[in-house]
Amino acid sequence: MTVVVKALLFDVQGTATDFHSTVCGEARRIAAGRFPGVDWAEVVRRWRAGYFAALEGALKAAPGQQSGWVSVRSVYRDALDAVLDGCGITGFSAGEREELALAWQRLKPWPDVVPGLTRLKGAYTLATLSNADVSTVIEISKRAGLPWDAVFAAEMAGVFKPDPAIYHMAATYLGLDPAEIMMVASHKYDVRAAGRLGFATAFVARPLEFGAGGDADVAYSDEFDVNAADFLDLAAQLGC
Amino acid sequence: MTVVVKALLFDVQGTATDFHSTVCGEARRIAAGRFPGVDWAEVVRRWRAGYFAALEGALKAAPGQQSGWVSVRSVYRDALDAVLDGCGITGFSAGEREELALAWQRLKPWPDVVPGLTRLKGAYTLATLSNADVSTVIEISKRAGLPWDAVFAAEMAGVFKPDPAIYHMAATYLGLDPAEIMMVASHKYDVRAAGRLGFATAFVARPLEFGAGGDADVAYSDEFDVNAADFLDLAAQLGC
Repeated sequence: MTVVVKALLFDVQGTATDFHSTVCGEARRIAAGRFPGVDWAEVVRRWRAGYFAALEGALKAAPGQQSGWVSVRSVYRDALDAVLDGCGITGFSAGEREELALAWQRLKPWPDVVPGLTRLKGAYTLATLSNADVSTVIEISKRAGLPWDAVFAAEMAGVFKPDPAIYHMAATYLGLDPAEIMMVASHKYDVRAAGRLGFATAFVARPLEFGAGGDADVAYSDEFDVNAADFLDLAAQLGC
Repeated sequence: MTVVVKALLFDVQGTATDFHSTVCGEARRIAAGRFPGVDWAEVVRRWRAGYFAALEGALKAAPGQQSGWVSVRSVYRDALDAVLDGCGITGFSAGEREELALAWQRLKPWPDVVPGLTRLKGAYTLATLSNADVSTVIEISKRAGLPWDAVFAAEMAGVFKPDPAIYHMAATYLGLDPAEIMMVASHKYDVRAAGRLGFATAFVARPLEFGAGGDADVAYSDEFDVNAADFLDLAAQLGC
C-alpha cells in the first residue's frame, strides 16, 4: 500500500533558519569591535551546546511532564552568561546580553527556505514542529515571511523533541496518521524519532549549520525516505 | 497608561467565515432538487444550534477537563441525523450525510476577510482562536488563503470558548499580556469572555450569519473597544 504524504513538519532552528550567521552577526554588531581576539563562531557553538545541555537536563528531570515548563527564550538567556564567562568575555552589559539573546527570536531563513516552502505549500500542509517557544516561532516566521499553515511547538506538548508526545501531538492536530506526515529536519535524532513512530522522513543537509568551521552531519542515509540538499531540492523530489 | 495591542485573535465560524451560505449551498447541491419543500436555511440554523447545545453539554459535563475530548467534526456529524429527522428529511444516504458534514471543513470567508487580514497583518500578529478542530481551521484557512501567523483552537486547551483557559492559553503562546491582545468576534459571549480577562475587544457585525431570515445580534455596544462593520472597517479603525 502506498501512503500519500499530506503534510510536512519542519524543524526551525538550524533546518529552516541559519542561527549561526544570525547570532554571530548580532554578536559582532553589539560587540562593535571591542573584543578583537574573540572567535564569535565558537561563542555561538558553545551557546547552542549550552542550550542542548539544558534541554537534555529538562528531558531527564521531568520526562513527559508539563509542570515546570521553562521557556526556551529563558534557556538561551540563562546559558549566555556561562558561555561569555567561559570565553573570557566580561564586557557585555546586562542590556547588551538581553539584546544579544533576542537574536534567537529573529533567526534568518536559509536562502532556499521561502522559495522552497512556497512551492511545497500548493501540494502539502506545512507546519513547524520546533523546540523553540510558540512566540519565537511566530516572530521568526513573521519577520522572514515563512508561509506555514500552522505553528506547532514543544511548548504545546509540554515536552521537547525527541519525546514521542510532541510528534503524536502534531499528528492529532493535523487529523492525520503518522504515515501521512513527513518530518523534515537537518538533525538526524529528530528525523529518526519521527521515523520510529511511523512518520515519513526527510533529512536536509545544512553544511553551514555551525558555521564554516563547524562539524554539521550532512551524510545522506538510506534510512530516510528523502535526503535533500535544501528545501528546493526537497520540493523537487516531492514533485512540486 | 496606554497599552499597545500587538496581536489579534479571531473567531472563525461566523466571524471570519460565512457558514450559513457555505453549508446551505452544499445541502442544496447534494439534495439536487430532491426535497423541494425544504427550508435549507432553517436546516442549517438547527444544525448550528445542535452544535452549540452539544458544546454546552460538553462544557457542563467536564469543565476544564482535557479527558474525553470530542472532535468538533464529530459533533457536527452526530448532530446532523437529529436535524434531518427533525426536519422530516429522510432521503439522505450515509455517504451524502458524510459529504454534507464536510461542508464545515470548507467554510468560505466573508468577502472582506482576506483583504482585511492582509491589511492587518503588516501591523499585528494574527491568530485564530476557534472552537473548531485544529485540522478544520487549517483546512478552511488553506482553502481560503487566510493569512494567519498561527492557528490556536479549543482542542489545544482541552476546553471550548468561553472557558477562560482557552484565552489564557493564547496569551501564553503569544508571549503577551491579555491587554496586548484583541479578541475579534461576531459573538458577544466570546468577546465579553475575553474582555473579562483583560483582553482588548472588537465586535464585528455579521448580519447574514444566520442567513437573510436569521436574527444575528449586530447591535454595537460601548462595552467593546471597537465595533466594526467588517474586517476592512476593523483594519481602518486600527490604523491599517
